[in-house]
Amino acid sequence: MTARTNFEKAAVTPSQQRSDIDIARAADIRPIADIGAALGVPWEAMVPYGHTKAKIGLDYIDSLADRPDGKLILVTGITPTPPGEGKTTTTVGLCDALNRLGSRAAACLREPSLGPCFGMKGGAAGGGQAQVIPMEDINLHFTGDLHAIGMAHNLLSALIDNHIHWGNALGIDPRRITWRRVMDMNERALREIVVGLGSGNGMPREDGFDITAASEIMAILCLANDLDDLQQRLGRIVVAETFERTPVTAAELDADGAMTVLLKDALMPNLVQTLENNPAFIHGGPFANIAHGCNSVMATKTALKLADYVVTEAGFGADLGAEKFFDIKCRKTGMQPAGAVVVATVRALKMHGGVALKDLKTENVAAVRAGCVNLARHLRNIKLFGVPPIVAINRFDTDTDAELSAIREAGLAHGAETVICTHHADGGRGAEELARRVVALVGRGEARFKPLYEDDLSLWDKVRTIATRLYDADDIVADKKIVQRFKALEKAGFGHFPVCIAKTQYSFSTDPTLRGAPSHHTLPIREVRLSAGAEFVVVVCGEIMTMPGLPRTPAATDMGIGAKGEVRGLF
Amino acid sequence: MTARTNFEKAAVTPSQQRSDIDIARAADIRPIADIGAALGVPWEAMVPYGHTKAKIGLDYIDSLADRPDGKLILVTGITPTPPGEGKTTTTVGLCDALNRLGSRAAACLREPSLGPCFGMKGGAAGGGQAQVIPMEDINLHFTGDLHAIGMAHNLLSALIDNHIHWGNALGIDPRRITWRRVMDMNERALREIVVGLGSGNGMPREDGFDITAASEIMAILCLANDLDDLQQRLGRIVVAETFERTPVTAAELDADGAMTVLLKDALMPNLVQTLENNPAFIHGGPFANIAHGCNSVMATKTALKLADYVVTEAGFGADLGAEKFFDIKCRKTGMQPAGAVVVATVRALKMHGGVALKDLKTENVAAVRAGCVNLARHLRNIKLFGVPPIVAINRFDTDTDAELSAIREAGLAHGAETVICTHHADGGRGAEELARRVVALVGRGEARFKPLYEDDLSLWDKVRTIATRLYDADDIVADKKIVQRFKALEKAGFGHFPVCIAKTQYSFSTDPTLRGAPSHHTLPIREVRLSAGAEFVVVVCGEIMTMPGLPRTPAATDMGIGAKGEVRGLF
Repeated sequence: MTARTNFEKAAVTPSQQRSDIDIARAADIRPIADIGAALGVPWEAMVPYGHTKAKIGLDYIDSLADRPDGKLILVTGITPTPPGEGKTTTTVGLCDALNRLGSRAAACLREPSLGPCFGMKGGAAGGGQAQVIPMEDINLHFTGDLHAIGMAHNLLSALIDNHIHWGNALGIDPRRITWRRVMDMNERALREIVVGLGSGNGMPREDGFDITAASEIMAILCLANDLDDLQQRLGRIVVAETFERTPVTAAELDADGAMTVLLKDALMPNLVQTLENNPAFIHGGPFANIAHGCNSVMATKTALKLADYVVTEAGFGADLGAEKFFDIKCRKTGMQPAGAVVVATVRALKMHGGVALKDLKTENVAAVRAGCVNLARHLRNIKLFGVPPIVAINRFDTDTDAELSAIREAGLAHGAETVICTHHADGGRGAEELARRVVALVGRGEARFKPLYEDDLSLWDKVRTIATRLYDADDIVADKKIVQRFKALEKAGFGHFPVCIAKTQYSFSTDPTLRGAPSHHTLPIREVRLSAGAEFVVVVCGEIMTMPGLPRTPAATDMGIGAKGEVRGLF
Repeated sequence: MTARTNFEKAAVTPSQQRSDIDIARAADIRPIADIGAALGVPWEAMVPYGHTKAKIGLDYIDSLADRPDGKLILVTGITPTPPGEGKTTTTVGLCDALNRLGSRAAACLREPSLGPCFGMKGGAAGGGQAQVIPMEDINLHFTGDLHAIGMAHNLLSALIDNHIHWGNALGIDPRRITWRRVMDMNERALREIVVGLGSGNGMPREDGFDITAASEIMAILCLANDLDDLQQRLGRIVVAETFERTPVTAAELDADGAMTVLLKDALMPNLVQTLENNPAFIHGGPFANIAHGCNSVMATKTALKLADYVVTEAGFGADLGAEKFFDIKCRKTGMQPAGAVVVATVRALKMHGGVALKDLKTENVAAVRAGCVNLARHLRNIKLFGVPPIVAINRFDTDTDAELSAIREAGLAHGAETVICTHHADGGRGAEELARRVVALVGRGEARFKPLYEDDLSLWDKVRTIATRLYDADDIVADKKIVQRFKALEKAGFGHFPVCIAKTQYSFSTDPTLRGAPSHHTLPIREVRLSAGAEFVVVVCGEIMTMPGLPRTPAATDMGIGAKGEVRGLF
């Protein structure tokens, strides 16, 4: 599951004969009650949304607490390239393959947001024979989670302006409100606005909208352990400063209770199925730059109690997605990943080796070999977390044996097996070899997970550790103002938070054109944002867009309902 | 079901012992599959949302076309007063009573919007022993209809600004965009805003947000006959004028298909149940001033195919709600109402007779008698539509026999029976007598429904007919600009539309302080708005608020999740 944003490309489609949507529509979808039953979830514990989607009740999830956890396998990728690599299809394919081998396995994916559907055509539910269904529902309103997040976010906004309107007892400085509004829509016209105009309509001030998935509430929902934790985190959100520069929290505005009420259903994980009728939890979709890019803790936790193997993915390449999965999600929850699958393609590695997009179909073993520096660095990095990696190659028709061998050699040189996969064309059958190797890998029990840095390191040194050890930067640099902001955050009690690096996903450096494995670069910090409820400090290193725009000809203009009631133009 | 707005008060609570929410929580709620089954709806035709809410599939609804219709009974009211009258409880109570008497009856109610919940405490799902459940869900996200309407509305907004940004081929005048944005929130700070600021963020222009229920899309969804009709209507929405003053429609922006995709689930009627486990369709909640104030045609049409009696309510008093139910909904659909229940209370009639709010508990027969001029005029008006009325009195402990007799006499003088009801305290049992009288009334087959005016009357004369015949105004007045606007609309082909009067609900006149039955007043027209998709011309006669604000202490600040996981502070 790829959160469709401007920042992340959908996976390419190797050997595509039928369209994804045709495959999805032809699927033999089973009642969600059956999918839940196969995991041992009783019908009473499921909250159906239609006949093929359900949420899992929180009380039932609580009741599982004493069960042992299954094995947690992360699917991550090399540094993304324009043709895409296929993390989501690999997650689905591996889940299906594990089930084919007789294991009880579940996939945990991120939930797409609706707004971007209207910009560029293309769903976000895997592809080919490795998809989750019902594809249309998942890409449209699904179970309403994004709507609930948007409401909770905008309720907090309304309470801020309302507080100012009715006398501003807290002394909120209207110029220092950092809590923007959200809408699940690509809406450039709302990026920068002025609100509160006209008589009796509150205090005029600058404001703006982000897309809903960029809300801190999305990150919070994905990190919350239960309803109580959710409310505590919501209450700690810092929304503004007073005229005396004191932070103002959502709890001070008494917003946390009502926000929790709005989110109580959204906190329940969503269960759907793969094309091969295996369980897939699709819940929460935070960005992997300004947030941690993983599906919800609730979903992963639940899946670990119900399945022997849980296959989950993280956003972008391993430098962003896996790092945050390890340093934020696993650190905070105590989850112990047993292994990591690094997804790559011959074409992508060729690009990292310097080949242009138009020449990717021509065999070029030297370029593949050169591009493997990117793969190698990600493998090295994952091992720094004490997690054993394995390489999965999404095979294309144009791949040659010599090119594939080059990758295999590079993987072995860094202590990782490489497995060729064809799940896009063949479904779970095409990932059976990967599944066998993954079972063997995690079965050896070599994982000794540890985060990259300790909580008590300074915020500056946390960033520096990531930059020098994972990105091979020589150093990090920042204005005095940024340095002071770090110190102020530490003084205010946020120094123990992990950092969340927001940089381009297209390079280890902050220059998106630097493919491969750049070294000796410098990471410049542009901005620091506190996500006090999500419990991390966002370190912005580059231009980060939190509200996309629509293209000249939006996908929306081609959509409609077909003759048989089917959705046209969404995919 | 009362759409909770600034314009409409929740019903009062006679002889209240337990709170509405306590009663609702203690209810023996049945699986929605059973409620559907009792109506003959197969489980496959239902789309469940949890275990106690469902939508009814459109294909199944199509399959009912050849069945005969049940009897349609409208519940309307006298001119509202601050303590409220209880239309929703009467609708629910009458439905329950009809079922107790052995008939198959269903209620059709409007769906509340979520935003206003955070302003004033108080749900919108009936009260006492006459409620629809699950009350919390109905008042929170329910089945997502409001969210879908908001998305469809704002997608159209996004496409307008995007069109201008990318070259404005249609020549849309940014100063003449009438399509505002919406949010389901009481948000005064968004009433008047400036969008498109900053470099690359589109064309700066004035804009604003309305609350989602005020969207023309809400009215369209409630008047659409099927998906195709929905898309046609969405395409006809007029959003702006060009620099040459030509109207621009949603279809010209190719927005109608994608909007239909967003609304395809929302178009399906929602089924829930009363406290006595009888079917209630709760679907669509347009305002009764700028729109027609009735639940959806889809829901009413479906209920008529499935039940022998369908009890539905219209917003505000009969001058606004019933008039629009008859002149817009019934005119457009060919529905034939068999009878109308006019809800009144002793207290409200006393207020119409000149008594102050604080003195309502003291017996005052003369004031009741004086106030009955209001009831009498509504009865006269309903008969103008060829529909036989009956009066239902929601009884309070403080009502005296002499006061009740005064109402009975007034009713009889205008050819209507009066029945005392205690469904708030007693549930369906308390409305059995009303049910018997209603069955007898509609059984006599006296209804000869006809709209108040013909389609081919001029728009001006349509307004004048309503004002003089129903409001007892001497005449209507308007600026030359308004007169020209009417003529322009007629020239543009909209002259055959019905008119939709937006005026205060607190008086037959435009002065909300004029209770009783004012005559010889004049109806001044302030503004005319075209709802080309909903197919009516809104005639604004007074201040109409389309975006409420939050009070000094919003209900939201008192909300939370209780120890047993229940929602606190919503009711």
